[in-house]
Amino acid sequence: MATPEMITSAANPLLKDVRRAIARGSLTAQGWCVAETFHLLEEALRSRSEVKVVLAAESVRAAAEAQVRRVEGVKIVVVPDAVMQKVSATQTSQGVVTLVRPPEWTLDQLLRGRALVVVLDGMQDPGNAGAVLRAAEAFGATGAIFLKGSVSPYNPKTLRASAGSLFRVPFLHGRDAAALLAAFKQRGVRLYAAVPAREGKAVRPLAEVDFTANCALIIGNEARGVGLDLRSAALEVSIPTAGVESLNAAVAAGILLYEARRQRTTA
Amino acid sequence: MATPEMITSAANPLLKDVRRAIARGSLTAQGWCVAETFHLLEEALRSRSEVKVVLAAESVRAAAEAQVRRVEGVKIVVVPDAVMQKVSATQTSQGVVTLVRPPEWTLDQLLRGRALVVVLDGMQDPGNAGAVLRAAEAFGATGAIFLKGSVSPYNPKTLRASAGSLFRVPFLHGRDAAALLAAFKQRGVRLYAAVPAREGKAVRPLAEVDFTANCALIIGNEARGVGLDLRSAALEVSIPTAGVESLNAAVAAGILLYEARRQRTTA
Repeated sequence: MATPEMITSAANPLLKDVRRAIARGSLTAQGWCVAETFHLLEEALRSRSEVKVVLAAESVRAAAEAQVRRVEGVKIVVVPDAVMQKVSATQTSQGVVTLVRPPEWTLDQLLRGRALVVVLDGMQDPGNAGAVLRAAEAFGATGAIFLKGSVSPYNPKTLRASAGSLFRVPFLHGRDAAALLAAFKQRGVRLYAAVPAREGKAVRPLAEVDFTANCALIIGNEARGVGLDLRSAALEVSIPTAGVESLNAAVAAGILLYEARRQRTTA
Repeated sequence: MATPEMITSAANPLLKDVRRAIARGSLTAQGWCVAETFHLLEEALRSRSEVKVVLAAESVRAAAEAQVRRVEGVKIVVVPDAVMQKVSATQTSQGVVTLVRPPEWTLDQLLRGRALVVVLDGMQDPGNAGAVLRAAEAFGATGAIFLKGSVSPYNPKTLRASAGSLFRVPFLHGRDAAALLAAFKQRGVRLYAAVPAREGKAVRPLAEVDFTANCALIIGNEARGVGLDLRSAALEVSIPTAGVESLNAAVAAGILLYEARRQRTTA
């Protein structure tokens, strides 16, 4: 698709497509990731992902051009501010939207070295999923897997909440739990399922759970937790808490990943 | 204000007031907290906070009545479904909105026993703030302080993300940093400021930072971090990470609180 240097109408097919992707939380019809904010433009340019087009509101054109100049062959399309405002409902888009070819990864890439994979089992909130990806990168996870029924990694809100980690952490999505269990079993990946600490039940301190071998940490849906099929195939681990039914899913994932890294760097 | 048993018009002053509070992320004009979802209705009824009114969509009236019946003197107001839908923009309100008198706390109550206070310095996202409150309760924090410039604890989204912890964790809000520093100094509360780990700079493991004395953990704004005045008055602590500039603010708070609780329960 040839994109002009300047789009003036909100009815332009590319803009309509981007607006739809933002509203639906998905890729564009062409299969491109929508990255809002200047920070994500920077992260996209730095990543190995192919940057297809940068849409820039007229008022931030110079800033976008300055950022893009350093990279060969990236096309900027300028859009009047009023039209740009209709593309993104968020006040935080900063007038710049980058379209990026999503990275493609294999399970082998996720399991390279001493594997530490975080598995999202039905996580719904893109803010949570993005925060998990950010923690995954921060604590040296080798990959992330979005099981079927989880929010899309390509939801622009997931990408934004990941602060760019989505461009770097190897991930798979739309995977089936049964097929994944088989693959993990075959490769000797140990499975841990995060479950809430229950009132009156002794919780094994995380420091006594061994996260140093190849392993996967399963984090469940915000309301229902990890599904029963996965729970029964995994070792259950709980974060010692008091008085609450559970932690926010991203906070729980962050603590487990922190503990895994702590063990792996001091062991 | 006398509320009728049944409201049929979206123009009703109480409904308009609730809608405004949800849109603005604040208390209602009467000074009531807006709690959406059945789960928060349950948490409100269980808490020591005074439940003023429960607004229930006609289709969930029976469920709301069943839940409220166990508590003396709580008034239900029934609202047609179509009108109720206009009150809350979120799809997750479940047709029930509880109006609660917000709890009031003193600094003494936040510092009771061996104090562990989490201080939000300009945190903007209500989802993050709620997740912090939830982690604060889970890890035995004695209180939370929302400094001036932070999101409101009374933002209905904060309350929802707190999963009800806002009804239980003692908190203060709108506080001035300078006044707080003076109060903490006077009472011998040790201050820690969470700052991102910097590339190439050695990070002291959290286990070597002593969180067992009376202390406060300061978590900053999502983009700017902790303000300079607070940083210079506090000991800086970093979570050992790699490759990312920082963690999500709620994830960082959760990890620090987890570590504090770990030290306090094993020490």
